[in-house]
Parts: sequence; structure tokens; C-alpha cells
Amino acid sequence: MNKPCPPASNDRRLRGQQKLAEIDGAAGQKVIDALADIAPDFADYLFEFPFGDIYSRPGLDLRAREIATIAALTAMGNATPQLKVHIEAGLNVGLQREEIVEILMQMAVYAGFPAALNGLFAAKEVFAHYQPAPAAGGATA
Amino acid sequence: MNKPCPPASNDRRLRGQQKLAEIDGAAGQKVIDALADIAPDFADYLFEFPFGDIYSRPGLDLRAREIATIAALTAMGNATPQLKVHIEAGLNVGLQREEIVEILMQMAVYAGFPAALNGLFAAKEVFAHYQPAPAAGGATA
Amino acid sequence: MNKPCPPASNDRRLRGQQKLAEIDGAAGQKVIDALADIAPDFADYLFEFPFGDIYSRPGLDLRAREIATIAALTAMGNATPQLKVHIEAGLNVGLQREEIVEILMQMAVYAGFPAALNGLFAAKEVFAHYQPAPAAGGATA
Amino acid sequence: MNKPCPPASNDRRLRGQQKLAEIDGAAGQKVIDALADIAPDFADYLFEFPFGDIYSRPGLDLRAREIATIAALTAMGNATPQLKVHIEAGLNVGLQREEIVEILMQMAVYAGFPAALNGLFAAKEVFAHYQPAPAAGGATA
Amino acid sequence: MNKPCPPASNDRRLRGQQKLAEIDGAAGQKVIDALADIAPDFADYLFEFPFGDIYSRPGLDLRAREIATIAALTAMGNATPQLKVHIEAGLNVGLQREEIVEILMQMAVYAGFPAALNGLFAAKEVFAHYQPAPAAGGATA
Amino acid sequence: MNKPCPPASNDRRLRGQQKLAEIDGAAGQKVIDALADIAPDFADYLFEFPFGDIYSRPGLDLRAREIATIAALTAMGNATPQLKVHIEAGLNVGLQREEIVEILMQMAVYAGFPAALNGLFAAKEVFAHYQPAPAAGGATA
Repeated sequence: MNKPCPPASNDRRLRGQQKLAEIDGAAGQKVIDALADIAPDFADYLFEFPFGDIYSRPGLDLRAREIATIAALTAMGNATPQLKVHIEAGLNVGLQREEIVEILMQMAVYAGFPAALNGLFAAKEVFAHYQPAPAAGGATA
Repeated sequence: MNKPCPPASNDRRLRGQQKLAEIDGAAGQKVIDALADIAPDFADYLFEFPFGDIYSRPGLDLRAREIATIAALTAMGNATPQLKVHIEAGLNVGLQREEIVEILMQMAVYAGFPAALNGLFAAKEVFAHYQPAPAAGGATA
Repeated sequence: MNKPCPPASNDRRLRGQQKLAEIDGAAGQKVIDALADIAPDFADYLFEFPFGDIYSRPGLDLRAREIATIAALTAMGNATPQLKVHIEAGLNVGLQREEIVEILMQMAVYAGFPAALNGLFAAKEVFAHYQPAPAAGGATA
Repeated sequence: MNKPCPPASNDRRLRGQQKLAEIDGAAGQKVIDALADIAPDFADYLFEFPFGDIYSRPGLDLRAREIATIAALTAMGNATPQLKVHIEAGLNVGLQREEIVEILMQMAVYAGFPAALNGLFAAKEVFAHYQPAPAAGGATA
Repeated sequence: MNKPCPPASNDRRLRGQQKLAEIDGAAGQKVIDALADIAPDFADYLFEFPFGDIYSRPGLDLRAREIATIAALTAMGNATPQLKVHIEAGLNVGLQREEIVEILMQMAVYAGFPAALNGLFAAKEVFAHYQPAPAAGGATA
Repeated sequence: MNKPCPPASNDRRLRGQQKLAEIDGAAGQKVIDALADIAPDFADYLFEFPFGDIYSRPGLDLRAREIATIAALTAMGNATPQLKVHIEAGLNVGLQREEIVEILMQMAVYAGFPAALNGLFAAKEVFAHYQPAPAAGGATA
């Protein structure tokens, strides 16, 4: 009788695709599509490492993970497209608008008022167009 | 009969001192002392705005606030002393070591492996010396 | 007879509003308005701390303060909207265009040629539309 | 008989103009033109130091220099216009599209996935419009 | 008869360990050891993604990869330990000291003179202690 | 009769050496010496471009130039050795300690409290050891 196969890379990719769909399926998919003609392997890496490996880890729930990512991207100040994706992801996994605004304002302390302001302006745009993702398997955090 | 006074700046300072003591009294105090001879006004600002204004706001609890700050300082990569203070603060307000390690590892995705590694090395140092703060009024988040 | 009230937070806000009007009333007001629906408290913080506390301090004049802010925002390279506000503020408080251009060019040494170039392109836009603010109480540095 | 003149600044400028034309004449020239009315001296510095001094040094060939510059600008994440110029320069000096994509993907490790993604999106735009520069003296690395 | 197993995660880890040994076995191993007690999973990720996935890709040789990483870490300016590891790695994969110095000097153009200087000081330390890695299978790029 | 030679690079170097001596001869010289064995050409570039070209320009006085550089390096947060050199240079060209402290505190607004704190700690060290440079020709701004 054959030994079971160890976890395969396509399992990581599958797990990552499911996790990405759970936090921000539509926006995440746009990024994947944009990569198709220039760097399809990078789309694989994007599913596999950030989502298949890190986001799937049980030690921190999705709400906490999005708090961390929103804070980091706001402080860095040079990743506005990704910050918008994660503000939306934050709403999808159960953060309230007011909680997201609190995180962004707090970044004034650690990264300065410009970083916080630019984060708040990004949030304005996301909030204006936000439609909660349809409830599907795994759509809640 | 006189009208009550509006909130005064020394109220903000007092509230800030209490909030800072709640999250990391000892380390925070060291910073305040270091400023005494060069910029005593900045010690006031440090109590008043980050802690009297922002950290005292009710919309996000201290555990979430420390998740955000630890993530941001790790991603920025240029504020190691402050990151150590906040890793310790995270432990004080109820984050588990494993949760802090999860945040730091997640920063590899958003700010790169060097940022995450340097955050983990900072955490190693903090964990090695950590003594839980004595339980005093308001010492829990 | 009742003791006089200590300085109140609305005094800081008022002082901040006056100081912001002195350096860049119109652009600053746009930012405040943009925050009204998403984070009105942050508009208060913006008046109170940067302008009510820091910019109102007597130890450095407004011309020197704008030199510092223009330099910092250019070097950081990730806060173009705020850099434009402060290039305009620099003109309002008495910096010459040629002096602002000198600061921006100098940033090539400390933050690299891209940072300096992007600062110069921001300045081009501001200079093209600049109308000196009408002389009103406190409009000069 | 008179001693020969030491290398003059206009020699550095001339050498820089030739080197810039060799790596990206058209895009580089656009930048120079944009500076003409605001900071013409900075156009001189741009020819003289980056290209007349650094890029003209023999110790590293142009292909290696563009690998370094593309990597750095991607990691910094706040210089997209210059990154596009140098992606184009990379193609001009003999880097393959696939090699440029490899550099950009590698930046996910050192500066995070957002930096790499934003670099890849910049490359998409450059690749879409790229016309190899006409073969002229010095047009190849 | 059973279907062969798809590529397993321990293959990525093994491939990554071999690649890391090829570019900087000793220094890389120190990092792995430092993580053992705090974040052993992160050591796995470090082998698997940066080295098992990215550095193992055939589209760019190790010499070019180290040019890119040295440039990026110098420009970022906040990852000195990792920069030292990669300056050493650069020497191991065939870059000459003079070539590494050229990359570092070039960063003055893109990230400013401080970034270049701090990179050169890091290189001084590495060069002072450098012993070429013993020739073992795969030790050359 | 021979035409006079155009400005030569050794004029730029000489002018730069004089300018550097004027703002911070001792500390600047240490940097130059540290480069002698690893990148002597970079010492030339350091004299020629930052000081021979930029700092020698008449459009902004040395006091204003040091305000700009101190602000930028504090905001960037990753160039502490150079920040210390320029805090000392600021004192040499006539900035008061209190003025330097004002600049550093102001950076809390634009780059966050950690950047400002780390700048203040750097200033503490410089102030503790500061000896005014001996009055020599050109030693005042």
C-alpha cells in the first residue's frame, strides 16, 4: 500500500486561492488577471506564500491579520493599490468602518500625518464603492 | 455659579500618562526621562497626543492597537527601539508571544523578509527579558 | 471668585486654525473638508497638534518650518499631496521660488535624484497655479 | 607651450549626455526638458553626476547597472516615473523582458509583494509601448 | 500502480537549503539558527520562498541576483544585517570587490549619499573578514 | 595666447573641500578617511557634488541648508550617522540647540513620533560632545 503524498505545492496554491477568496475575492482576482501576460508565475507565488502559507496559519485570525496589514501599508505610504484591497478585505472579514478609521488615524503617531491622511483618502474611495461580498462558503472570517 | 471648565490640556496629559502606564509604564517612562534635559515639551506631546488622544479613543481596543503598531513599526524597519517598546506593550495588553510572532512573520509579505527578520530579532530580545507588569488599576486592556 | 480655566482643547484648535490659515488657508481647508464625512475627529487633531501645538511654537519661524517640511516630504517621497500643500505654504510665508527649488535640488544629495526630481515636478504644478493669498490678519509669517 | 586643460565640467556634461542617450535618450530627454523652466541647473547635474560620473565608470557594465537601478527603484516603491525610465533603459542595454521580470519578482523577497507587484505593473506599461531605440553610435551597451 | 507524488514542500525546502548554501551557507545558517527558538516555521519559509522558489529560478543567474539584492538593500537603508549577508554572498557567487563597490556608489544617485555611504561601510566590514567559501558541489554560481 | 581653461573638476573638489570644512570639517574628514581604502573615488564625489556643487550654490544660505538636511535625515530615519554629522554642522553654521530641537520635534508631524524621538536621541549625543569649531576663514555661515 502506498504512503500518502506529502503536501504538494498545488495544495498550497489551492489553499491560497480559497483564503484569498475569503478575504477579497474580486480585487485579488483582478491582480491575478493583470499578471497573466507578464508574470504568471508571480500569480502562483501570490496565492501560495501570502495566502496559502501566511494567511492560512491558525495563530492569528483574519480580523487581526487585516488590522496588521492595513496598518503596515498605511505606514509604508507607497502601496496605495494594495492598501485599498486590504481596506476592502478588512470590511469583508468583519472590521467596522469605524475600526478601520481608528487604525488609519493611529498611523499619524507612528508614520506621520501625511501617511494617515493618505490612508484615510484611500479608505474614502473604498467605502464609497463597497458592496459586501455575497455570503459563500468561507466568506466569513 | 460658574460654568465648568472645558477639557484642559493637563487632562489630556494625565489621561495620556495613565494610558501609557497601562500599556508599558516602565519603558515609556525611560523615554520620557531621556527627553527631560533636551526636549521636555516633547515628553508632554508624547503623553498628550499618542496616548491622551489616540490610544485613549474607545473605537479600538488596546490589543488591536498594539497589533497595528507592531505591524507598522516592523514594516517601516527604521524604528527598532520603539518596536521593542511596543512588543513589550503587546505582551502587557494580552497578546500572546505566538500572536506577536505571527504579526512579525506576516510582515515578510508586505515589507519583505529583512523587515520580518529584524522584527523577530527584536522580539527575541524583548521576550528574553520580559517580566509581566504588576497588576495595577487599569493594567489589563 | 473662580480660578481661571486652564488652556482648553478648543483653544488649541482655534490657535491651530489660525496658524493653518496663516500658512495655507485654502489648501488646508480642502483637507479638513475631505475628512468631514470619514474622520471628523482627525480634522480636529490636524488643527490641534501640527498647527496648534507645533507650528505655533515660537522657537522657529514659519519660513524655517516650511524649509524643514518641504525637505522632509521630498526626501520621504511618498506624500506628494502634502508636499504640494507645503510648497504653496512656503510661498505664502515668504520663501522665494528659487529658494524652494534650492531645497528640492539639495534633496538629490540626501534622498537621491528621483526624490528631488519628483519634488521639482510637484513644484512646477504648484508654481503654475499659485496666487498669493489675500493679505488678511496673520497672512504674513 | 601651454599645459593641457584638466577635465572640464562641460566634458562631464557631454560625456553624461552621450551616456544618457545610450541608455534611454528619449525618456531622459523628456525629463531634461521638463526641468528647463524650473531648474535648468538640475538638468546639468543630472547629466554630469549620474551619467557623466557614475554610469560612465568602467567597473560595471550598463546591463549590470540597470539591474541594480531597476531593483533599487522597485524596492524603494516611491519613484515610479524613474522606474519606468529604467525598465526601458534595461531593454535598451540588452536585458530581456524575462530578465527584468525576474528582478521585479525577486523584490518580493526583499521589499515585499506590494513593491514587486507595483514594479510589475510599471513594467507592463513600458513593455506595451516599447520600441527599440534606433541603432546609432553607442546605442548598444 | 500509484501515480507519482507532485512536488512536495520538503522538495522546495531542500532545494532552498542547497541554494542558500551555494550563495552564503555560513551566514544564512546563522539566521536559521537564531530563529529556532522563536519562529522555526519562519526558517522554513526562508528556505522555501526566497531560495527554493525565487533564487532557484533559471531566468537570472546568481551574479545578477546578488547585484539586484545588494542594490535594493542599500537603497532601502534599513536592513544592514541582511545587506552584509548579501555582500558576502556576492563575493561567493563571483562578484569582484570592485564590482560591489560600483553598485554601492551607484546607489548615491537613486537613494542618496547616506544610503551609499552606509552600504560602503557595511562592505568594509565584510571585506575585512571575508574568507572564500570552500569549493563544494554547487559552490560556484 | 591660449584660451583660459574652463572650470576643472579639481576646482569643484577644492571648492567642496572648503565648503565641507566650513560646515563640519572634522566629522566630514572622518568619512573621507574611512573611504580611502575601499572607495577613494567616492570621497572625490562626496566633495564634488554635495559640497562643491550643491552646498556652494548661493541661492540658500548654510543655515537654511542645514535646516533642510537635518529635517530630511530625521524623516528618513535610516541615516543616523549622517544625521549626527549634520546636527553638528547645524551648530557650526549658527543654528541654536533650541532651533535644532524644534526641527526634530516638528518631524513628529510629518514622519511620526519614532522618527522625531530617534532624531532627538541623536542630538543628545551630539550636544554632549560638541566643541565649537575654531574660528577660521569661512567658519561662519
